[in-house]
Formats: sequence, structure tokens, C-alpha cells
Amino acid sequence: MRLEIWFEFASTYSYLTVSRAEKLLQDTEVELVWRPFLLGPIFADRGLDTSPFVLDPVKGQYMWRDMARRCEKYGIPFMRPHIFPMNGVKAARIMTTALDQPWCGTFARSVFSAQFGRGLDISDNIVLGNALETCGVPQEPWLNRAQLPEAKDALRAATDQAGRLGVSGAPSMVVGDELFWGDDRLEDAIIFACDERR
Amino acid sequence: MRLEIWFEFASTYSYLTVSRAEKLLQDTEVELVWRPFLLGPIFADRGLDTSPFVLDPVKGQYMWRDMARRCEKYGIPFMRPHIFPMNGVKAARIMTTALDQPWCGTFARSVFSAQFGRGLDISDNIVLGNALETCGVPQEPWLNRAQLPEAKDALRAATDQAGRLGVSGAPSMVVGDELFWGDDRLEDAIIFACDERR
Repeated sequence: MRLEIWFEFASTYSYLTVSRAEKLLQDTEVELVWRPFLLGPIFADRGLDTSPFVLDPVKGQYMWRDMARRCEKYGIPFMRPHIFPMNGVKAARIMTTALDQPWCGTFARSVFSAQFGRGLDISDNIVLGNALETCGVPQEPWLNRAQLPEAKDALRAATDQAGRLGVSGAPSMVVGDELFWGDDRLEDAIIFACDERR
Repeated sequence: MRLEIWFEFASTYSYLTVSRAEKLLQDTEVELVWRPFLLGPIFADRGLDTSPFVLDPVKGQYMWRDMARRCEKYGIPFMRPHIFPMNGVKAARIMTTALDQPWCGTFARSVFSAQFGRGLDISDNIVLGNALETCGVPQEPWLNRAQLPEAKDALRAATDQAGRLGVSGAPSMVVGDELFWGDDRLEDAIIFACDERR
């Protein structure tokens, strides 16, 4: 069965799922499909002009404490960046053009760990270039591909599809007709995907 | 260590926590403290005039599907009521006056299971009376106590305290200075409360 992981590069809880998913799936026969998209347009459709964690500071403060605890629980490095939410558009466009590459999961993890593990700005070409280097691929061609109209169109189409699927936040997992929202539903989504009857 | 469970009778995810908590705690030395409160004033402080699950229908639709799956996972009966959110004020007032009674957890479970297990209206005195009967106590005196100014004041004070604690939704667990939000953090809150160093 296919498990789609819809994620946004600026999303804190997407960091947890992108860091955990491949390991959780390694002894299963589930096919993992990365689906980068942008939360901005999804939020805008609901009348929100930025992250709910910024619009509601009490909720935001809780989220950062929760993230610190979750990262500790999972043994994932955590550093709260000075900027939130960061601009993840360029990272998402690179990922969108690289979905058929064997290193695309490594790229996502590397960008997330730069952002939420070391507090770096992921809109910076140096940070993105380093992530590409971690994947063993040349920086320039992939940074350039992200500027092509096809990359922009593909990311826009993915975001539209997320909206149609009823995605309200990231990460969201899709297995068949079932939608699972939040890193704390990742295990449930995997169990669902592993179910032999499906 | 003390584990406070802050919950609202109209809240779907509070149903899961109220149904699960006592069993999860039975072999621990954690002291469970029920803290009924009202979400309405908390939402109002954030500029919301009802549940976020009503204000955002996409999020609401997801929540009901998620609830059905979670109830199945935990073996808890589930029926989506026709009214949401219900008026849980009377139930909360009764609970508030009964916090020193050994049956107060049973009362909470009984009210929640009437609402989300059988779809009944918990603002109805018959439903509340049945819940009191399940606890083996006479209906009239407890239904009447809920009308006393002391009951109203105590519930109002609890709701104010929830606001000061940074509670944004229900259930929320408080252990020392740590706040855990959501039924999916119940296990983490219990592990935290069990930690010997605390």
C-alpha cells in the first residue's frame, strides 16, 4: 500500500515526521511517497494570513515546548530558530523537482535538521546547497531547476491537491481514502497502510 | 506526583482521555485530579465564538473521522451526536461540586459515554440524572447543588485558572509546571508524572 506524506518545509511537526518516517517504514512493504506542499495558501483559504502558532501566541508557546519534548523523546536534535515560520518555498520547489531521485528523502531530512536542529534559515541558498551536497549531488543544477516555471507549477498543483484532500495542516498522511493529520498519527497511518486487507 | 486532567464536557477528545485515564494510572502512584472547566470563555478570549471544529468545517469533518478511528483503536463506543458542541455547563457544575466524591470519575465517564457513545444530550436533566444513578447517588440533591452560586463561582474560577495555565483546548494535562495538550499526550503526561526525580 501507498503512504503519502504531505509536508511543508516551514512546519515544526513535519520535521518530526520527515525525521521518523523512513525508519518506521523500513521493515514494511509500504511505498512511501513524499508530497511537499505549501501551507500558506491552505491557511489563506481559511482566512489565516500566517501560521496559527503565530496568530495565537499561547498556542505557539505551547507548540515550542511540545516540540522540545517530542524531539527529546525521539532523540532528534532541536533548536528553536529565530525566524518562524521560515520561507520554505525554494526548498519545496527543489524537492518537487527531485521526487523521482533516490536522495529526495535525505534532502528533506537535511533541510529540516538545518532549520529545527541547528536554527538555520532554509531560504538561504547556502543552506539548501549544503543539503544537496549531503545528498551527493551538484548544487547549481538543482538550485536552478527550482526556478523553472515547471517547478513552480508542480508545487502549486500539489498545494491545490492538498486543499482538495481536506489537508488542514502538516504533516498529513494519506492512505487510500483515509487522511491522518499530525506527527502523532504517523504510526496509525503506517498500521493502516500495512493492513493486509487493503 | 499529581496529574491534573483539565477537560470540558462538550469536548470530543476529552471523552477519550476521561475514558482512558483511570485505567492507565491504576498501577502507578500518580494522584489523578479531575479539573472540569469551560472551553467557551477560553475560545472567546482568542476571538472564537464557538469550537474551532465548527468554525472550520474541513477541520471538523476530519475530527469526526479521527474520533471514530481513535474510539475503535481504544475499544470505546462512538456515536456522533446530532448537536455539537453540546452545552456541558450543568454537567461541569455537578462535577465541580463533586470533586471530593469517590464517584466523580464514574460520573464524568458516564456523561461522556451518554454523549459520544450514545449521542444523548447532556444538557438534559434525565441524562445527567442517569449518570448520577450510575454512581449510586440520589439525583435531586446533586442536580440542585449545581444551581448554587458556589458551584457557578467554582467553575468560573477553574476556567479562569485554565486560562492562566495557558490551556488552549481540552483535554490538557498539568504535571508540575508542564502542560500537555490533547488525548494523544496523555501517555507522555503520565510518564512525566511517574518520573522518580519529580
